[in-house]
Amino acid sequence: MSDDRHDPERRPLDFDDDPWSLGLEGLDADRLPHRESVFALSNGHIGWRGVLDEGEPVGIAGCYANGVYETYTMPYSEPGYAYPTEGQGIVNVPDGQVIRLLVDGEPFDVRTGRLHRHVQRLDFRAGTLHREVDWVSPSGSRVRVTSTRLVSFERRAVAAVRYAVEAVDAAVEVTVQSELVANVPIPDDTHPDDGVQRLLEHPLVPVGDFAIGTAAALVHLVRRSRIRVASAMDHLIESPGGGRVDTETSEDLARTTIGVRLGPGERLRLTKAVAYEWSTDATDGGLRDRADAEVADALGEGWDALADAQRRRLDDFWSAADVTVEGEPRLQQAVRFALFQVFQSAARLDGRSVPGKGLTGTGYQGHTFWDFEGFVLPVLTSTLPEAAREALRWRHATLGKARDRARELHLEGAAFPWRTLDGTESSGYWLASTIAWHLQAAIAAAVVHFHRGTRDERFLRDHGLELLVETARLWMSLARRDDDGGVHFDGVTGPDEYSAMADDNAYTNLMAAQNLRAAASVAGDLPEIAARLGVGSDEIDGWRDAAARVVVPFDERLGVHQQSAGFTEYARWDFAGTPPDRYPLQDHYPYFGMYRRQVAKQADLVLALYFAHEAFTPEQTARAFAYYEGVTVRDSSLSACIQAVIAAQVGHLGLAADYLAEAATLDLDDVQGDTEDGVHLASLAGIWTALVAGFGGFRDSETEVRFAPRLPPQLTRLEFGIRFCGRVIRVDTSTDATTYTLVDGEPVTVRHFDEEVALERDRPVTMPTPSLPHPGPRPEQPAGRAPRPFAEAFGRGGAAAG
Amino acid sequence: MSDDRHDPERRPLDFDDDPWSLGLEGLDADRLPHRESVFALSNGHIGWRGVLDEGEPVGIAGCYANGVYETYTMPYSEPGYAYPTEGQGIVNVPDGQVIRLLVDGEPFDVRTGRLHRHVQRLDFRAGTLHREVDWVSPSGSRVRVTSTRLVSFERRAVAAVRYAVEAVDAAVEVTVQSELVANVPIPDDTHPDDGVQRLLEHPLVPVGDFAIGTAAALVHLVRRSRIRVASAMDHLIESPGGGRVDTETSEDLARTTIGVRLGPGERLRLTKAVAYEWSTDATDGGLRDRADAEVADALGEGWDALADAQRRRLDDFWSAADVTVEGEPRLQQAVRFALFQVFQSAARLDGRSVPGKGLTGTGYQGHTFWDFEGFVLPVLTSTLPEAAREALRWRHATLGKARDRARELHLEGAAFPWRTLDGTESSGYWLASTIAWHLQAAIAAAVVHFHRGTRDERFLRDHGLELLVETARLWMSLARRDDDGGVHFDGVTGPDEYSAMADDNAYTNLMAAQNLRAAASVAGDLPEIAARLGVGSDEIDGWRDAAARVVVPFDERLGVHQQSAGFTEYARWDFAGTPPDRYPLQDHYPYFGMYRRQVAKQADLVLALYFAHEAFTPEQTARAFAYYEGVTVRDSSLSACIQAVIAAQVGHLGLAADYLAEAATLDLDDVQGDTEDGVHLASLAGIWTALVAGFGGFRDSETEVRFAPRLPPQLTRLEFGIRFCGRVIRVDTSTDATTYTLVDGEPVTVRHFDEEVALERDRPVTMPTPSLPHPGPRPEQPAGRAPRPFAEAFGRGGAAAG
Repeated sequence: MSDDRHDPERRPLDFDDDPWSLGLEGLDADRLPHRESVFALSNGHIGWRGVLDEGEPVGIAGCYANGVYETYTMPYSEPGYAYPTEGQGIVNVPDGQVIRLLVDGEPFDVRTGRLHRHVQRLDFRAGTLHREVDWVSPSGSRVRVTSTRLVSFERRAVAAVRYAVEAVDAAVEVTVQSELVANVPIPDDTHPDDGVQRLLEHPLVPVGDFAIGTAAALVHLVRRSRIRVASAMDHLIESPGGGRVDTETSEDLARTTIGVRLGPGERLRLTKAVAYEWSTDATDGGLRDRADAEVADALGEGWDALADAQRRRLDDFWSAADVTVEGEPRLQQAVRFALFQVFQSAARLDGRSVPGKGLTGTGYQGHTFWDFEGFVLPVLTSTLPEAAREALRWRHATLGKARDRARELHLEGAAFPWRTLDGTESSGYWLASTIAWHLQAAIAAAVVHFHRGTRDERFLRDHGLELLVETARLWMSLARRDDDGGVHFDGVTGPDEYSAMADDNAYTNLMAAQNLRAAASVAGDLPEIAARLGVGSDEIDGWRDAAARVVVPFDERLGVHQQSAGFTEYARWDFAGTPPDRYPLQDHYPYFGMYRRQVAKQADLVLALYFAHEAFTPEQTARAFAYYEGVTVRDSSLSACIQAVIAAQVGHLGLAADYLAEAATLDLDDVQGDTEDGVHLASLAGIWTALVAGFGGFRDSETEVRFAPRLPPQLTRLEFGIRFCGRVIRVDTSTDATTYTLVDGEPVTVRHFDEEVALERDRPVTMPTPSLPHPGPRPEQPAGRAPRPFAEAFGRGGAAAG
Repeated sequence: MSDDRHDPERRPLDFDDDPWSLGLEGLDADRLPHRESVFALSNGHIGWRGVLDEGEPVGIAGCYANGVYETYTMPYSEPGYAYPTEGQGIVNVPDGQVIRLLVDGEPFDVRTGRLHRHVQRLDFRAGTLHREVDWVSPSGSRVRVTSTRLVSFERRAVAAVRYAVEAVDAAVEVTVQSELVANVPIPDDTHPDDGVQRLLEHPLVPVGDFAIGTAAALVHLVRRSRIRVASAMDHLIESPGGGRVDTETSEDLARTTIGVRLGPGERLRLTKAVAYEWSTDATDGGLRDRADAEVADALGEGWDALADAQRRRLDDFWSAADVTVEGEPRLQQAVRFALFQVFQSAARLDGRSVPGKGLTGTGYQGHTFWDFEGFVLPVLTSTLPEAAREALRWRHATLGKARDRARELHLEGAAFPWRTLDGTESSGYWLASTIAWHLQAAIAAAVVHFHRGTRDERFLRDHGLELLVETARLWMSLARRDDDGGVHFDGVTGPDEYSAMADDNAYTNLMAAQNLRAAASVAGDLPEIAARLGVGSDEIDGWRDAAARVVVPFDERLGVHQQSAGFTEYARWDFAGTPPDRYPLQDHYPYFGMYRRQVAKQADLVLALYFAHEAFTPEQTARAFAYYEGVTVRDSSLSACIQAVIAAQVGHLGLAADYLAEAATLDLDDVQGDTEDGVHLASLAGIWTALVAGFGGFRDSETEVRFAPRLPPQLTRLEFGIRFCGRVIRVDTSTDATTYTLVDGEPVTVRHFDEEVALERDRPVTMPTPSLPHPGPRPEQPAGRAPRPFAEAFGRGGAAAG
C-alpha cells in the first residue's frame, strides 16, 4: 500500500464534526472501501462492514464471525525448521446485510437516477449505523429509503436492520429482496500467494439450506478448517397490505422477496434479524436451530428493544470511559470514534481474540498481533475492564500451543505467536515474528497493567501468574550471560520493523526485565499457586537476578541509549536522497538495506521511554527522543501516538499535538491509504494514550500513579478517567490547573508532577499546573517526515502553534 | 536430508578400487538413486543419469539439457521488496536411455529370474558407462546383455549407446524397444511448494512427433518458459536376420521395436544415437532437423569413431590434469573419479553454467552457486583452462541481469545471483543469498586465478576486467566508513550458513578487499579498457584506499580473528547437549537459534585462512584453525576439503588426511545421504584442492607461487600439475623430497617452503622436505563431529595415524 500521508491530492471523506456521531453526506463511489471500514459495526463476536444495504455499488463486502477462518498450507520457496506450516485466514460468513430494492421494476442503485440526499451516520451512543436516502429512479419514481443497522452488544450472535422504503410523490411498485449470500469473495489481495488466495475466496461448502415462512437458514462447512457455520435470518414486515412475500433458499443463497404497491407517503418497513453460530464440534442441525432461535428471540423482542439494549450498554460504557476534549471538535469526535471502535472490537469477546483490524476488514488476514496487548489492552483496562480480562483469558487459553511452540524452538516456557487467529503461529517471516520476542513481554505487561488497574486477584491467580511465569521462563532460556554476569538477548527484533535480528534491543531488554521482575513479584506474593506451577524460590531468585543484570546499550559518545547494540554506529539512512514517493520504505527498498542503517519505521527506543519509563532519567529521555526523532519515518501506524506521549513528556507540546492529530485522523482521513482493509485498532487506542499518557502525563509503576497534565495551545480542556489499584480516578485538566476526583474506591495518594495528592472519594482536589521549563529546540524529523501541523490535519488550514 | 555420516548401519555401495575406473558388481535395488548419480554421464551440455537401460527398476530417472528449465512464480507467505518473483527449475528432457527387452515374452527385469552377473563400470579414460548382465528369465531363458553408453565430448548434442543381447544356452525370441520418453517426472521433493512441484513434473507440451525408418523425433515446448526442445534418435541394427523392425511415435513417446529370434550364441546389437536441440527462438522444424542431422552424423561415423573420439578427449585431459596418489588405492580412484566428474561437468559448456550437481541430478533445481567459482573453477583453471574461461564468459554474459539486480537493490555495479540457471536470482531466502555478497568476490577471485594461471590477456580485456570493475563497484556501494576511515560491511552473510546478517564477516571483508585491489590493479594495467568502462584514476584510487582500510575483526583477548564482529562473544552452541541424530542442525533447530551462537556449518574464517592467506601470520592461522575447529560441525559438503587444506598447512597432517578422506568418500559412500540428488561437484573439486593446496601446500599471490609439500603418513607419493603465469609446473612429492618440473612456459622461480627454486623447462629440480616443527595438540572438533579416521573412511578398519 502506498503512503499518501503527504499527498496533497488526497481528498478524504468529508465527515461532519458532531461530538457523538460520525456523519457523512453524499456518496462518492470511489471511496466506498474506506467508508465501509469506518462505518463497520461489530461486537467482537461478529462484524459487518458498512456496505450499502442494496449491495451495489460496493467496495469490499465483509461479514465476519470471530473464529470462522480457513486454513492453508503456508507457501515457502525455501522452508526451514519450525517454519509454521498451517496458515489461517479470516473468510466471509454469509452476508446478511443485503436488502435489494426494485422500484417500478428498476433496481435501486445510487449511481443511477438522481440522488437528492444520501446520509450515513455512525452513532456512538446508539451503537447504530443509520442511513437516509432520497432517490429518483431513472424513469422518475421517487422513494425514501432509511435503514438503521446494529450488531447487538446484548445478543452476541445477532445483527439486525430496520429498513424502510417510502413512496414520495406518487405510487410505486417496490420489490424488496432480503438475502443471506454465501461465498462472497474477500478482496483479491488478501493473500500474496495465488493458491492460498483462491482457497480463501470460496471457502464455504454448502451443507444445507432451509426456509420456513419468512425465515431461512444456511449451513456451511469451511472446506479445510472444518468449521461449521449456520446463518439464519427472519423478518418482521410492516406493509400497507396487498403484497406478496416469498422465502426461498438454494445452496449459497437465502432470499425473502416482498412485493408491494406503495401509495404516496406509504411505507414498507421490515425488521431483519440475522444470527450466526459456528463450531467445529456441533452438529449442523444443532447450529442451525441455535441460529434460528436467536433470530426468533430477537424479533420476538422487536426492534425497539434491541435498540434500547444497545444504547444502554453504551451509556454504561461512556459513563466510565468518555474522554472530553475541548478546543478542536474534530478531535473530540475522533477520540469518541476511537473509543467506540475499541469498545465494539471487544464488547462480546467470549474466548476469542481481537484482530489488528477488529472485525472491520480482512487486513492482516484477521490476525491478532502484539499491539493488541501493547496498545489496546491498557485502554480497555481503564474503559472496559471485563473485556480486557476476557482478552487475556484468550491468551491464556492458547498457552498449550505457546508451550508446544517453545518446545519446537528448543526453548523453555511459552512462545506466543506473532500473528494468529487461534493461537497457532501464522507468520511466514521469522525475522519479524519469531524473534520479535518483545511480544511475550507485551502480554506480561498487559497482565501487570490489568492487575494494577483492577486488583482482580482471581484473574491473577487463575490466569495472570501463569502467563507471567511462562513468559519469564522463555526469557531465561533466551538469555546469554557475559563474562561479567551481564544478561544479553542476542539476535532479536524489536518493535521497529526496519531493523531485525540485532543484539540487545533496548526496548526488548527492558521489557524482558520487567517481565522477569513481575513474574518474581507475583510468584512471591502467591507462593502456593507458584508452587503449583513448579516455581520455587531458586527460580524466583534467578528471575530477579537476571532482571537486575540485563544490559541496556548506551552510546557514551552521544549520550543516548542505543535502539540496539551498535545502532548509533550504523550508517544513517540517506533521508535527503529519498524522494517522498519512496515511502513507506519497505515497498521500495530491500530489508537488508534498512536493517543495518539508522532508520526506524516506528517508535522503538521511544516506546521504551514510555513503557519502561522508570529506566530513564528526564535528561536521557529528552536526549533519546530528540535523537530518534531524526531517524524515525513513521511508516507504521503504531508510531505517532507514542511519539505524542514522549513529545508531551519532554515539553514539546506542539509536536505532541501534531502527532496526536495524525493518529486521530489516520482512519477518518485514510492517511495511510489502507483503511479499506479495516480500521487501525491499535492506533485508535493510541489516541486515548496520546491524550491520557501524553497530555495527561499518566504513568504507573508498581507503587504509584503519577500525572503531569499539560495542554498544548490548541486544547483548553481534557477530562478522562483512569483505573488504578481497583480505584477509578477522573482527571480534569484545563490550561492552568487539574482537578482530581476519586470516583470509586478507597482513599489513595497520587502524584501531580512532583507533588503528592491525597484523594478521598468524591472530594475533588485541584492542583495548579507548574510552569514548563523551556524544552529546547523542537526535534527535527527526517526530510519530509514531519507530522502535519495539528490545525492542518483537522482541516483548519494554516500551521498550528509549535 | 538426514546426515548419516556417523551411521554405523549405512552400507555404502561396494565399489572396487581400480585406479582408472569405478566398478560395481551386483545390484542392490534399494541403492539405485545413489548408483545413478555416481554413474551419470555428461558433457556439460547434456546429461544422463546412470539408470539401467531397461528403465526398471529405477531410482530417479534423469535426462537433462543445460538450459532447458521451467519457470514458476516463487511462492512466499510474506513477500518483500525485490524478492525474486520468477523461479527456475531444471526439468527432464525426453529420456533416450530406455532400451527395454522382452525375452521369450518375459520382460527383462533384474529383480526377477536369476541374475548370474551384473557389473557396471564407469571408465575414466574411455568416458563410458559399461554394463554386463548375465540373466536367466523366470521361465529359464538365459541371455547376456551388454551396454556401453557415452555422452559425447566431441558432439555436444549427442549421447549414444551400444547395446547387445545374446542368447546363451538356447534359442530365445527377443524383442527390444528402444525409446524416447517425454515427461518422465522429476523426484517428488524437487520443490517444497506443491504448486511448483506439479508444474515441474509435467513441463513438456507436445508440439510434434515424427518417424522415418528407424529414426524418430519429438518436439516439445516447455509450458511456461517457452523453451522448445527437439529430441531425436536413430539406430544401427546388427541382427542375425529374420526379424522385424518398427518405429512409431506418439506425443510423448517414440519407439523403435526390434523383434528377432536368436540362436544360442547369436547376438542382436544396436547402436543408438540420441541428440537434443533446444532454443527459445528457433522453429520447431529447425530444431528437429538439427537433432535429426546430429543423430545421422553420429551414426554415420559409427560407434567406434564415437568411442575413439571420446577416449582421445580424455587422453588429452589426463595428460595435463592427472593427479597421482600412492598409499591408498581408493584415494587414487577417488581423485580420478572427482576429476572425471569435474571434466564432464564442464567439457562442452558453450555459454552455459555448471550447476552445483553438474548434470547428474535435480538437486538445488539445477542451480549454479558461488561454489562453482570458489571451488570448481580453480581446479578447471589448472586442468581444463578452456572450460574455466567458458564458465567465466557465462558469468560475463549475465552481467546485464546482474546490473539490473544491483539497480533494483539501489546499489552500484553488478549483483550476481546466489542461485540461478540463466542469471536471474532464484533464491527465496535473502538472508542466505542476497546478502551473501561474498559470492561476488568469488567471481572476481576466479577471474584473478584464471588469469594468474593462464595469462589469457584477451579474456581479461574482453570479459575479466569488466567483471572485476562491476563487482568492485558493488562493494563500494555496500561499504560503510567509520569515523576513523575504517571500511565496514554491515549485515552480511558469510560462507557459514549457520550465521547470517552479521557485521564485518572476516572472510567477506578480506575477499572484498581482494576484489577491490584486483580491480584497481587490472584497471591500472589496462587504462584504455578501463576508460571504456568509465573507470578513471579517482575510482581506482578509491578502490585501493577502501581495500587498505577494510576492517577485519579480531578478538584481542583470545588472540583469534572473529568470523564476524562479536562472534567470539556469542554463546557457544551446546554441543554436548546435541545428540548425533540432531545433525544436520538446520533440520532440527531454527535459524535464529544458530545465527547468534558460536557454531559454524562450514569453514568460514578457515576459508579466509586459505583464500586470503596473505592476511594471516602462521601463528594467527594456527590459532584461528584450532579455535574454529571447536565450533565447526561440517554440515556442509564444502567444509572438509578446506579444513584439510589448513590442517595440512598448520602441520596436523593426520587430521588433514581424515578430512581429505571424508571429501574423497562423500559421493562414493553417499556420506550425507543425498548423493541421489546428484554429485557434490564442489566437494569433488575440493579433493584436488585438499591434495594440491593441502599436502602440496600450493598458494599463489599476485607475485609468486609457493609450495610446501608434506605428505601424511598414509601417503607415499603425490604428483600433480599446476598452471601459473601461463606456465605448467608438475610437482612430484614423496615423503622426503619434492621434484619440480617446468613442463610448459618460460623459466620461473617458485618457492619451496621458504626457499626459492628457479625452474627451466624440462629440468627437474628436487628439494628436500624440511622437518616439521611440532604443531601442538590436535585440534578438537565438537562432540561427535570429528572426521572418521582415514583408514576407516576407506574401509580399511582401525584408526589411522593421528
